[in-house]
Amino acid sequence: MADLAYTVPGLGTEDSQRLVESLQDRLHAMNDLHLTLKHAHWNVVGPRFIAVHEMLDPQVELVRGYADELAERIAQLGASPVGTPGRLVSDRSWSDYELGKADTQEHLKAIDAVYDGVIASNRKAITLAGELDPITEDLLIGQTAELEKFQWFVRAHFEGSQA
Amino acid sequence: MADLAYTVPGLGTEDSQRLVESLQDRLHAMNDLHLTLKHAHWNVVGPRFIAVHEMLDPQVELVRGYADELAERIAQLGASPVGTPGRLVSDRSWSDYELGKADTQEHLKAIDAVYDGVIASNRKAITLAGELDPITEDLLIGQTAELEKFQWFVRAHFEGSQA
Amino acid sequence: MADLAYTVPGLGTEDSQRLVESLQDRLHAMNDLHLTLKHAHWNVVGPRFIAVHEMLDPQVELVRGYADELAERIAQLGASPVGTPGRLVSDRSWSDYELGKADTQEHLKAIDAVYDGVIASNRKAITLAGELDPITEDLLIGQTAELEKFQWFVRAHFEGSQA
Amino acid sequence: MADLAYTVPGLGTEDSQRLVESLQDRLHAMNDLHLTLKHAHWNVVGPRFIAVHEMLDPQVELVRGYADELAERIAQLGASPVGTPGRLVSDRSWSDYELGKADTQEHLKAIDAVYDGVIASNRKAITLAGELDPITEDLLIGQTAELEKFQWFVRAHFEGSQA
Amino acid sequence: MADLAYTVPGLGTEDSQRLVESLQDRLHAMNDLHLTLKHAHWNVVGPRFIAVHEMLDPQVELVRGYADELAERIAQLGASPVGTPGRLVSDRSWSDYELGKADTQEHLKAIDAVYDGVIASNRKAITLAGELDPITEDLLIGQTAELEKFQWFVRAHFEGSQA
Amino acid sequence: MADLAYTVPGLGTEDSQRLVESLQDRLHAMNDLHLTLKHAHWNVVGPRFIAVHEMLDPQVELVRGYADELAERIAQLGASPVGTPGRLVSDRSWSDYELGKADTQEHLKAIDAVYDGVIASNRKAITLAGELDPITEDLLIGQTAELEKFQWFVRAHFEGSQA
Amino acid sequence: MADLAYTVPGLGTEDSQRLVESLQDRLHAMNDLHLTLKHAHWNVVGPRFIAVHEMLDPQVELVRGYADELAERIAQLGASPVGTPGRLVSDRSWSDYELGKADTQEHLKAIDAVYDGVIASNRKAITLAGELDPITEDLLIGQTAELEKFQWFVRAHFEGSQA
Amino acid sequence: MADLAYTVPGLGTEDSQRLVESLQDRLHAMNDLHLTLKHAHWNVVGPRFIAVHEMLDPQVELVRGYADELAERIAQLGASPVGTPGRLVSDRSWSDYELGKADTQEHLKAIDAVYDGVIASNRKAITLAGELDPITEDLLIGQTAELEKFQWFVRAHFEGSQA
Amino acid sequence: MADLAYTVPGLGTEDSQRLVESLQDRLHAMNDLHLTLKHAHWNVVGPRFIAVHEMLDPQVELVRGYADELAERIAQLGASPVGTPGRLVSDRSWSDYELGKADTQEHLKAIDAVYDGVIASNRKAITLAGELDPITEDLLIGQTAELEKFQWFVRAHFEGSQA
Amino acid sequence: MADLAYTVPGLGTEDSQRLVESLQDRLHAMNDLHLTLKHAHWNVVGPRFIAVHEMLDPQVELVRGYADELAERIAQLGASPVGTPGRLVSDRSWSDYELGKADTQEHLKAIDAVYDGVIASNRKAITLAGELDPITEDLLIGQTAELEKFQWFVRAHFEGSQA
Amino acid sequence: MADLAYTVPGLGTEDSQRLVESLQDRLHAMNDLHLTLKHAHWNVVGPRFIAVHEMLDPQVELVRGYADELAERIAQLGASPVGTPGRLVSDRSWSDYELGKADTQEHLKAIDAVYDGVIASNRKAITLAGELDPITEDLLIGQTAELEKFQWFVRAHFEGSQA
Amino acid sequence: MADLAYTVPGLGTEDSQRLVESLQDRLHAMNDLHLTLKHAHWNVVGPRFIAVHEMLDPQVELVRGYADELAERIAQLGASPVGTPGRLVSDRSWSDYELGKADTQEHLKAIDAVYDGVIASNRKAITLAGELDPITEDLLIGQTAELEKFQWFVRAHFEGSQA
Repeated sequence: MADLAYTVPGLGTEDSQRLVESLQDRLHAMNDLHLTLKHAHWNVVGPRFIAVHEMLDPQVELVRGYADELAERIAQLGASPVGTPGRLVSDRSWSDYELGKADTQEHLKAIDAVYDGVIASNRKAITLAGELDPITEDLLIGQTAELEKFQWFVRAHFEGSQA
Repeated sequence: MADLAYTVPGLGTEDSQRLVESLQDRLHAMNDLHLTLKHAHWNVVGPRFIAVHEMLDPQVELVRGYADELAERIAQLGASPVGTPGRLVSDRSWSDYELGKADTQEHLKAIDAVYDGVIASNRKAITLAGELDPITEDLLIGQTAELEKFQWFVRAHFEGSQA
Repeated sequence: MADLAYTVPGLGTEDSQRLVESLQDRLHAMNDLHLTLKHAHWNVVGPRFIAVHEMLDPQVELVRGYADELAERIAQLGASPVGTPGRLVSDRSWSDYELGKADTQEHLKAIDAVYDGVIASNRKAITLAGELDPITEDLLIGQTAELEKFQWFVRAHFEGSQA
Repeated sequence: MADLAYTVPGLGTEDSQRLVESLQDRLHAMNDLHLTLKHAHWNVVGPRFIAVHEMLDPQVELVRGYADELAERIAQLGASPVGTPGRLVSDRSWSDYELGKADTQEHLKAIDAVYDGVIASNRKAITLAGELDPITEDLLIGQTAELEKFQWFVRAHFEGSQA
Repeated sequence: MADLAYTVPGLGTEDSQRLVESLQDRLHAMNDLHLTLKHAHWNVVGPRFIAVHEMLDPQVELVRGYADELAERIAQLGASPVGTPGRLVSDRSWSDYELGKADTQEHLKAIDAVYDGVIASNRKAITLAGELDPITEDLLIGQTAELEKFQWFVRAHFEGSQA
Repeated sequence: MADLAYTVPGLGTEDSQRLVESLQDRLHAMNDLHLTLKHAHWNVVGPRFIAVHEMLDPQVELVRGYADELAERIAQLGASPVGTPGRLVSDRSWSDYELGKADTQEHLKAIDAVYDGVIASNRKAITLAGELDPITEDLLIGQTAELEKFQWFVRAHFEGSQA
Repeated sequence: MADLAYTVPGLGTEDSQRLVESLQDRLHAMNDLHLTLKHAHWNVVGPRFIAVHEMLDPQVELVRGYADELAERIAQLGASPVGTPGRLVSDRSWSDYELGKADTQEHLKAIDAVYDGVIASNRKAITLAGELDPITEDLLIGQTAELEKFQWFVRAHFEGSQA
Repeated sequence: MADLAYTVPGLGTEDSQRLVESLQDRLHAMNDLHLTLKHAHWNVVGPRFIAVHEMLDPQVELVRGYADELAERIAQLGASPVGTPGRLVSDRSWSDYELGKADTQEHLKAIDAVYDGVIASNRKAITLAGELDPITEDLLIGQTAELEKFQWFVRAHFEGSQA
Repeated sequence: MADLAYTVPGLGTEDSQRLVESLQDRLHAMNDLHLTLKHAHWNVVGPRFIAVHEMLDPQVELVRGYADELAERIAQLGASPVGTPGRLVSDRSWSDYELGKADTQEHLKAIDAVYDGVIASNRKAITLAGELDPITEDLLIGQTAELEKFQWFVRAHFEGSQA
Repeated sequence: MADLAYTVPGLGTEDSQRLVESLQDRLHAMNDLHLTLKHAHWNVVGPRFIAVHEMLDPQVELVRGYADELAERIAQLGASPVGTPGRLVSDRSWSDYELGKADTQEHLKAIDAVYDGVIASNRKAITLAGELDPITEDLLIGQTAELEKFQWFVRAHFEGSQA
Repeated sequence: MADLAYTVPGLGTEDSQRLVESLQDRLHAMNDLHLTLKHAHWNVVGPRFIAVHEMLDPQVELVRGYADELAERIAQLGASPVGTPGRLVSDRSWSDYELGKADTQEHLKAIDAVYDGVIASNRKAITLAGELDPITEDLLIGQTAELEKFQWFVRAHFEGSQA
Repeated sequence: MADLAYTVPGLGTEDSQRLVESLQDRLHAMNDLHLTLKHAHWNVVGPRFIAVHEMLDPQVELVRGYADELAERIAQLGASPVGTPGRLVSDRSWSDYELGKADTQEHLKAIDAVYDGVIASNRKAITLAGELDPITEDLLIGQTAELEKFQWFVRAHFEGSQA
């Protein structure tokens, strides 16, 4: 990673560099997530198609916005955010979402697993940021809160009696 | 109940007093209902979670507005509307909604029963108001019409073939 | 069919007459379709009521707009568009939608069959218009595209595992 | 007509059945009316074309909404509302609107006659509902009020000096 | 009063004539009332100026709309509504509002008295309309309900401890 | 007229008094005008009813706003604006509008005459204000400009070939 | 005409040049048309003034947008669109609109003739574009569709009985 | 309290349980608070009625939203949020609001006392959440900030000279 | 120029005629200006393309509105406004804008020169109108103020250090 | 003050210079005024807190816009507008607003005095501009009109009976 | 590629299969393009930063919508659209965008090259679709038209004199 | 500084006093900043004028809002916020912004330096608040985040190749 051009006033260069690395990983995660949620939006089928198809789109919009916030935070810290698909695939530590056309419940199960990974990593990033920079920490807390809310939406489909 | 400070022009004090009693009962019912619907909104689970979760919220908004209309009608009749939870619980003639986290169909069944009670009482209040004051009657008719529409939404989930 | 009062500049009278006949048939189809979709909107029942009930309404709005476009295109070609129910029923080559109150999946199956007929006829009308008038062709392509999208919504409810 | 699945709390089954029959007739009338007004919207001609063409559309929108309200009231009373064109034509007691392309004043005369019939029948339905159910009565009063307002718009074109 | 050109379908001419007389009186009352409320809006002074000045304007808007509804109902019944100030003054049975620049509480007292008269007359008009025409009755009930709500706003300023 | 409580900074008391007198006359004129235009709005008939009926309403809204501006200008100059109908009728130097139900062209002719008077008086008020206070002058110029535009709308109906 | 700086990928330079010539002619036609429609908007008179005056403005807005689309398509093809009035007048093959202040029907007749010319030329441009570039073709089809709709509005004023 | 069905990724079950208990207490507090503020909204009287009546409503809206956020956070942590009035009254550690119809200043004094309790408890909940979960902490900080702002609105009415 | 059909109340015919001549010249100027600004909007190129391309469009919208105001003022004065391109070109005293595709700074220089001419002529028209009619004067002042603001936008691009 | 870079077409350099000086003084006054009104917005207390607190904010918005208009007019005249607080304080001829936390009536009294000074100076600036440039004059008249309206709001709180 | 579940009425299975392959390639292209444009949005620097930074975002929005349309068209043809980043990278025939933080002109050059490839491929897809399915053809034409417009925006930055 | 009238529940008086001092300093900084940014908005010139002129205004709006939040937080803590220009200038520890009319890049350089100071001080205030009050801390974090984003906008203009 290249040297930083500058960083925000009052933050050390080394701390900034560590934040940038963590944020770049989250940026890849958010780009992957909004592509994956759109993919699921197109591929869910079954008798509850329309309800789940429509539930996914607002989350796509939110996650796209989170990628934007993360990338612009990287830029504020003086680095160059990377958002291309080739770099995303070569840098990431997780695999491609594997489900194609499938019933809504199957997709929700698979999405639940995706959120387990994303949120656990976000919480680690919050801890790191909490030691270095309250502004980055606050940004990550706000994003994670909404991801946790959406995961509850997903999980609520698996509880209770069947009908 | 204290004496009325005044009442609307052209309406007798005693009639006003009887209307106030009936309206206060409906006010408690509406405050109970919007709290109960929100409670269900948070506690429904199962494979049709998102559709039912979202169906409940607009009704909550309507019922909150009905409580407001009823309370302000009581005030117009010169009395003091009571909207605190302690008074609601000590004054009401029905029990607390009992379902916690449960499948959407179970909650809809329980909500259906709640509407049976609320609407039957509303229709009695309409009959009383019809004898005393056309303006109060019209207000109650308008509210009951929407409650009956929502109960149809609820009931429609129990008819037809299973899937 | 009466002689045309006029037609659009640059189009022959006979070609216009053939377009008018084809468009009048599509106008009957669209009037039938929006009535039928509303009928289904009112008659679906079962545990997925609310999701399907709400899915149908935006399509009703679109199809009403398509009837309007077709009728005004007929008028632009100098003829008189016919939109009354008596003429629709006596002129059409298909039968009334037969389902009353029934489960959402049953209605979606029946609607799927309706769309098979409507879209196949629209595609024939596109072919005819493609030979005579690019503007009418474009209008029909635009309408058919949305009908095909909605039929996919309907069909997606039949695929995948049951739940 | 099939037995009712249920009806609104506090209303007898027989009364509900009578209301359903009356409301189904009004539903046919409203479906017929909005199709007829659109037909006129497309077929008016003459030097006052644009003013009358535009005056008809908002009324179409209102009447479509009235059909929706009536059908959903039928469903609330436990019956199945019928909205298909074949059933409309076979059940109705009036004839198809006969005017094709014609001057605005001719169409307004014909529409005036249509409203005479529709409103007179609505008033009978109000009287019946007034005996059975104040909520259905209120719904019909609200719709009739707007129909009477529009008929005044129509009639106002025939009074005063000619120009 | 001239003979009616026509009236709404299903209503007798004599009944219409009686309704028109009652409605014309209410039309004068509403025209008087919105002028008077604007006059007060401009003339209130004192330490609570801004709150009362702003409270009056939405009621002016409502009352202007009520004049419009009443006048158009008269026209629907085949008569000519009268809205000129000269006729208002010569026909009315009450006096001009007398307060000029004065404290908010004084104006509210005077407005309270105006509403006593207007509402009492409205209730008589409701009773008459209730015998002749449910649509006119419903219109008057709706207007009176809002007038009673506003009078409560006014009255609420006189109760409780002074400050 | 009572002494002024105050006036705007930099303007003499006597000049303010002269402005107030002129503005009060214009306030009566605007109150009269918006009542008269509404009266015409309700009473126009004939084959061009809908176009003229709708043309009048936006002007009513403008003129109501002009009355508000004039009255608040009087208040700014320290006087009490008078807006009641009794005072309007006793103070004005012109007669009540006389037309009842009549053809659109007749009403437009009568309205044209009303505007001749109103605008001529407004121009005199502009001249007076031009000598005393540029802010009042600017207010009157802005109002007169729109009145002259509307009078052109009215006049344009009388020119050209008949149809 | 100067050499093209570039053209859209996949289109030959000579074909682009031919499209540019055709589009420049249509750009002049649209600039002429929106000026002419505004001129008519200002100069119509007679008893149907307001209805026709208002009918013309939305078409002016559309045609201004069409000029913009055509000019930007020329630029995309690498040429310089010409939009000045001097060049329009020296390049065009038709004459200035000749009517000044005149009755609405006269103006509508003259506008009808203008549309005959514009639409016939547009259809020739569609044919040419259809051979060279589907994107330009689609743009012209979309514009012509709306022009044909508006010409129907115009023509509808000449049919039917006189009044 | 039942075992949790799940909790958010990266948070221990015991910590979640402790958060749920704290959040359920805050949920009761918010449900109580929005009912109480509405009760006051209906019961304030006196010469400053309208200003205080209107000041309370936006806070009601905010507090209703806070109840929603708290309940959905409880659900995200795998528990069942309780929102019924019976449970609220039996679980709470404070008494019902006691004021009925009373002067605005009296109600503001009583509301001030309510906020003292609510905010002090919220701050304790912030401290607890700060030890366990930054996302819950952030949610509570955001809500408390707005409550403190509103309490300032209330308190500002008691300072300064009397009038 | 033909005799005026009428003019605004309180203005002499000769004065009106002089105003019409001046306003017609300004109408040609505004029609020329909005065409020229659109032409520049399409033909600017260079590294600051997007910023200047977007800066021009709101001014086009304003100037089109000014042409409308001027033409309608001419009509109010009883004359026929001329808005056709042929008459614009034959009547104007200035030349066509000559720049084709060119760098943003070149176009801004050329536009600056155009505004020098337009504004200087507007100020002469203001002086003339100031002697004859305060309403026309006010209209021209308002338009010129915005033109001067836009010219500042243009000029600001030429000052300061180069980059 | 530096030489002007340019000025608006048709205005002499010396006149422009005199206008700039006058406008710069008004710019300081408006910057001071919007800061002062915000300061009062934060510091008013007492039983009428909420009404006065809310009344001040829209005026702050207006005055900020006036500062913008004045500064941009200075720029149009070729000079550099000065908007920094240091220059405001060193250039102004009046003192800082002195009231801290105080009752609403006290603040309104102090604000009234501020407006006396601002408006008197504005009227002098209008007189000067009237001799030099009608466009600057019109801008100042428009701003002063709104300031005088707001001062009336303020003053109206001191008249009438106390409560 | 798996067999199709169904396809749109009137289209052969083999033709559908060929369309799906072409559309899947375009879907990958659009997903790549919107990620790339966002990447550029974050990485442009230099004195024209803000103008180019803001120019890119609306195109990102459009291209995201195009991916959605393409994927849903694939689903309508009975296949499963693929939108995950892993599959995009392994299936595509082009390389990752290579520029990091760089001057706006450099990025615009690189984006221009990307559009050369995307548009040329789109035009081939249009040709194929034109042989098989007019609805898919129309969808691709509409998308390509906007891409060509945006490429013109990009290209316009390279023409003309440097500054 | 005077004693506090009260403070928020659960916060000590001394801690509140320390927060107030810190917040008052930030309030002066924000008032200074929005005035300075407006000053720059008016004084930027050069070939990139319009892009930078427009970029500054939304930041002015944000910073005005931040001043409001800070001042109201001071009031919640029981103190009197100071917002007058005289006190700002006498209390601040930095100098007036010195640039007058100058090229966009020069202003951006000077603004960059201003942000260095403001943000560094904000971060110190965050640290202090973090020790005393999480709500004040959160408010300052949110404001600083946006200031850092805007500074990145500014800084991005200095990187990369020159043009």
